[in-house]
Amino acid sequence: MAGHSNPKNYTELEKIFHPQSVAIVGVPSGSGQATMASGFLNSLLELKFQEIHSLYPVNPKMDEVEGLKCYKNLLEIDGEVDHVISMVPAHVVPQLVEDCVTKKVNSVHFYTAGFSETGDPAMVEKEKELITKLKDAGIRAIGPNCMGLYVPSERIGFMNGFPPESGNVFLLSQSGANAGDVVHGLAKRGVRFSKAVSFGNGADIKAHHLLNYAAQDPETEVVAAYMEGVQEGRDFFQALKMCASIKPTVILKGGIHAAGARAANSHTGSLAGSIQIFEAACRQAGAMRAETMDDLHDLIITLTTNAKSIKNSGVALVSGGGGYAVLSSDAIATAGLDVPQMPTETVEQLREFIPVAGTSVNNPIDTNLSDKDLQVKMLGIVANSTVTDVVFTNAQFNTPRKNKEQETPADKTESVRSESLESANTIASLQNQTKIPFIAIQRTRSFGELAGIANDTFANEAYRNGIAVYPTVSRAARSLGLILDWRKRRTGLPEIF
Amino acid sequence: MAGHSNPKNYTELEKIFHPQSVAIVGVPSGSGQATMASGFLNSLLELKFQEIHSLYPVNPKMDEVEGLKCYKNLLEIDGEVDHVISMVPAHVVPQLVEDCVTKKVNSVHFYTAGFSETGDPAMVEKEKELITKLKDAGIRAIGPNCMGLYVPSERIGFMNGFPPESGNVFLLSQSGANAGDVVHGLAKRGVRFSKAVSFGNGADIKAHHLLNYAAQDPETEVVAAYMEGVQEGRDFFQALKMCASIKPTVILKGGIHAAGARAANSHTGSLAGSIQIFEAACRQAGAMRAETMDDLHDLIITLTTNAKSIKNSGVALVSGGGGYAVLSSDAIATAGLDVPQMPTETVEQLREFIPVAGTSVNNPIDTNLSDKDLQVKMLGIVANSTVTDVVFTNAQFNTPRKNKEQETPADKTESVRSESLESANTIASLQNQTKIPFIAIQRTRSFGELAGIANDTFANEAYRNGIAVYPTVSRAARSLGLILDWRKRRTGLPEIF
Repeated sequence: MAGHSNPKNYTELEKIFHPQSVAIVGVPSGSGQATMASGFLNSLLELKFQEIHSLYPVNPKMDEVEGLKCYKNLLEIDGEVDHVISMVPAHVVPQLVEDCVTKKVNSVHFYTAGFSETGDPAMVEKEKELITKLKDAGIRAIGPNCMGLYVPSERIGFMNGFPPESGNVFLLSQSGANAGDVVHGLAKRGVRFSKAVSFGNGADIKAHHLLNYAAQDPETEVVAAYMEGVQEGRDFFQALKMCASIKPTVILKGGIHAAGARAANSHTGSLAGSIQIFEAACRQAGAMRAETMDDLHDLIITLTTNAKSIKNSGVALVSGGGGYAVLSSDAIATAGLDVPQMPTETVEQLREFIPVAGTSVNNPIDTNLSDKDLQVKMLGIVANSTVTDVVFTNAQFNTPRKNKEQETPADKTESVRSESLESANTIASLQNQTKIPFIAIQRTRSFGELAGIANDTFANEAYRNGIAVYPTVSRAARSLGLILDWRKRRTGLPEIF
Repeated sequence: MAGHSNPKNYTELEKIFHPQSVAIVGVPSGSGQATMASGFLNSLLELKFQEIHSLYPVNPKMDEVEGLKCYKNLLEIDGEVDHVISMVPAHVVPQLVEDCVTKKVNSVHFYTAGFSETGDPAMVEKEKELITKLKDAGIRAIGPNCMGLYVPSERIGFMNGFPPESGNVFLLSQSGANAGDVVHGLAKRGVRFSKAVSFGNGADIKAHHLLNYAAQDPETEVVAAYMEGVQEGRDFFQALKMCASIKPTVILKGGIHAAGARAANSHTGSLAGSIQIFEAACRQAGAMRAETMDDLHDLIITLTTNAKSIKNSGVALVSGGGGYAVLSSDAIATAGLDVPQMPTETVEQLREFIPVAGTSVNNPIDTNLSDKDLQVKMLGIVANSTVTDVVFTNAQFNTPRKNKEQETPADKTESVRSESLESANTIASLQNQTKIPFIAIQRTRSFGELAGIANDTFANEAYRNGIAVYPTVSRAARSLGLILDWRKRRTGLPEIF
């Protein structure tokens, strides 16, 4: 492990990530409705936090909420409180801070907004004052103005629909909405998280503390970040360098144009800074920069599947449709990869069972094989060609379905599910046999109402088997291009994989 | 109408687009399976062509197919045959051509591949010979190596799932797969077509004939094309110029990189040519160039909704989530549009009912309004601001849904449908009242299994009401940016809208 790790920081954050008891102060009444406001209690209940830990709602106006005893204030709670979620308005926070000190809590997460991000100098000062008071008492703070913690192993989360299972991706984000986008969006594609933190204004715990922790966290293999502005630049750069030297680290930076920067300033009080400097810092540190939210999603898919082991830029493109092959070849070239012509011996092997009319086997490979065994044979030959570094194929095989007009809707759903599973497993077997990464493209434009089921089933099963799935050829190619570029730039740094 | 129109061309194509009788020669046995091979018969049956016209399957090995009498050959058919779909192998085509001449058909569409696109000089020669023979007999040909005609008003189509209703978009495509992508993908978003033609190798009917026709077709308001290579360049440019001077015309060119060009050559035998020259031709002609298939889809949405009337680049971005607002602002700026600060009077109007903490009303507008009436009020104020040329909003309002655990799946589907309809209609009313284009963004990453229903219902209802819907802010912004850019370049050309 590199020399910049900070054991104290690690231990303190480890404690924050594993609270045994949580109090939600200012929990709104009427929590039965799945509104944003009642989200924290709902999310904890959904993940069944209360079954393994202590959960204390606090609101002086209620005696009970969602079947749990509701407390008048923090001090009324009998047991210890490790972590406090503050939902009270900003003007009530000073009293809550007093109570936290008295109660000797370990950490506070301020969902409460209305501090430094307002730009009001009095509120900037107030934020500082409150954080100092907490720090002096040995209490760490997340926020203000953020969504806080998602730790599946401790059943703590901040939005409904977060997966209960743990994974290997650590996410830090200055935005709660963007953290939710990453967790929800990647969960649908099969990814699971070790921890996610929405840290907002970063008045106490900042990006560099979290990077430092993630680098040392044994649960974490890949680190992803959404940032608007950098605080304490030198510490940030050191932490980024340390983290990126041992784990793949991807950062999306928001506020790169004037309008975005203004939005960032009113969002988390961040000064966005120059994107050129940020890009240079990422390059020097050996981190990857995602230019868009789609990039961030796709890079995490690439880094947590066999796609990451791509050796060079030769794509074997197995396409459905000639015009689709043309546009896909263009997209692959735009991303800096190649669609090399297949060598004579590969062409000859393919021509043994693929007719000439209406097909192409030079690469892109465009065939009308309706027999599944022949499709598998063709994919195997293509993967084994000397020019192939990666195979792009469609998520679903082109197997003809019988007209099953007698099917019930439930039957139909079930057969879509089982076809998706079978298709994903077939591609996974091919990847295992050939040791060449297979990339599956989900072409969904012509899908009907069962699209959601087909896509999600396929994506999850494929991902579980180490297959990267992307919505379009151009997104797949771009993500692989970014990985190849990043790997080249890592010369001199320790090998990660 | 411009001087380059060609009445003979128009009349001949008009006749091809309105066949009263169709023979499918070489219709495969076992047509009950929805395979590509049996697609033509299935598609015609699906659109109920046989209910208003005569449909003649031809295959010497069958007496009946799908309840229709099957003929041994073309000459055995008693009635007239206007249009022939050739599914026979290339080596059988010479005999079919003889039969077509004898039978005095009006047009032939060769699905049959294996001619000039193979690059085999003998087959290139063969293609020429056959087309000359047909021409001499006054018979026009579509293809070879293509999917042919989609004319909803005549119930003729070439893939399953094409809408039975007519619309105002004309599509010409050298690729059948890409034509299918456009029709299926845009149908899901509400668009309908006057005609679509997949014309493959273009041995007889070429892009310029189709552009010429589309320009004069009273059913057509917007023209879209997918091209791989240009044949008869001067005629093409003249037709493009004429068409683009009177109707918005969008072209996607495939084969812009070496790999794509090679794919185009083996696909339709096209020589892809320089993209710079193509771009220059589009600019001079006053046409729009789509750089990707997504561009083509989005531009058609823009051109057939109120989005086309956008006056200038000021976007009022109504966002869900601060970080989402930051990234969206960046994406809008990347596309060349602005997110201008709201004037003081607008901010004051909004602050009357939007609290300061956790919100922003300067633009992007980020609020937590859970009351629908207040959301509508806010959107109205924002649209009426002096700096607003267009409003970006989320497809679904953030209305809190009650926990309805007792709901049946059918109830749930129904309430998703009705919420989507209501949301689309609310946005449409706002657009009608304010006369400012509203753009709806479908954020789908966190959606569950009902995503398909919610999206499709919303998209169709919104489109029907003149609202443009896009999957992401960056795609919306890019499409609007392309329209603004195109409009600037049209100085001196007739005003289209």
